[in-house]
Amino acid sequence: MSVMDDDNFELHPQLEQDGRLIVSLGTSDWLLMNDSRFPWVVQVPRFKGATLMTSLPAEMRAGVRRESDFMVEVLQGLFNPDHINVAQIGNVVSQLHIHHVCRFTDDALWPKPIWAQTPAIPYTDVQYQERLAALRWQF
Amino acid sequence: MSVMDDDNFELHPQLEQDGRLIVSLGTSDWLLMNDSRFPWVVQVPRFKGATLMTSLPAEMRAGVRRESDFMVEVLQGLFNPDHINVAQIGNVVSQLHIHHVCRFTDDALWPKPIWAQTPAIPYTDVQYQERLAALRWQF
Repeated sequence: MSVMDDDNFELHPQLEQDGRLIVSLGTSDWLLMNDSRFPWVVQVPRFKGATLMTSLPAEMRAGVRRESDFMVEVLQGLFNPDHINVAQIGNVVSQLHIHHVCRFTDDALWPKPIWAQTPAIPYTDVQYQERLAALRWQF
Repeated sequence: MSVMDDDNFELHPQLEQDGRLIVSLGTSDWLLMNDSRFPWVVQVPRFKGATLMTSLPAEMRAGVRRESDFMVEVLQGLFNPDHINVAQIGNVVSQLHIHHVCRFTDDALWPKPIWAQTPAIPYTDVQYQERLAALRWQF
């Protein structure tokens, strides 16, 4: 728990279903999405009712962005992607969440964005645990 | 020209073709995309070779984010959208650019993201000039 924590925050059930917690950092919960096609992590700032970055108090907003920049560096170090997509979409799940998706020029959907395309290909349990462990070792 | 300006920066030809300049702010050029389906503006930080936010020096990065937050408020005031998508994708045009797209629950593509879907529907010249003017009056 951080001093910035909002006690009323609850992770949206759809996000809880689609991913597993990597780590809770100062402002945000970080989830690894269950899609083996690309390392895909989602940042969820713990602030009830937020739908846009501008919903957040300025201090928290700055912390959310510092964490995002740090995660981009972690992903680059671990996976050496060709590019990283960083996006707030939230048309279906309105709770503020920021996608960070490692992309490779030979991945299944390149160069398309990954949303509203073909369905996820889940990890095996072993793959998922291994990838979660690799990410958790960074924190 | 701002003190932070990178003299070697040149706007990517694809962005130049797809949009028209609304305004140049301290860190970024802001373009209105020629798609009448939704107010869609793109922020292009003037920094040669940047592909991710982490490509930018810390001071400029903070300025880019302040401008983005300000533009979100401008778009809310002008267009009263149901939601705004804020996204760095850049799989096709690698030059760092941040989409800000006003979305409406009755727009042509809701709730899908707008990228890699059906083609843009251009404004008429009069519509485009009017929308550009409405945006420029905010600065």
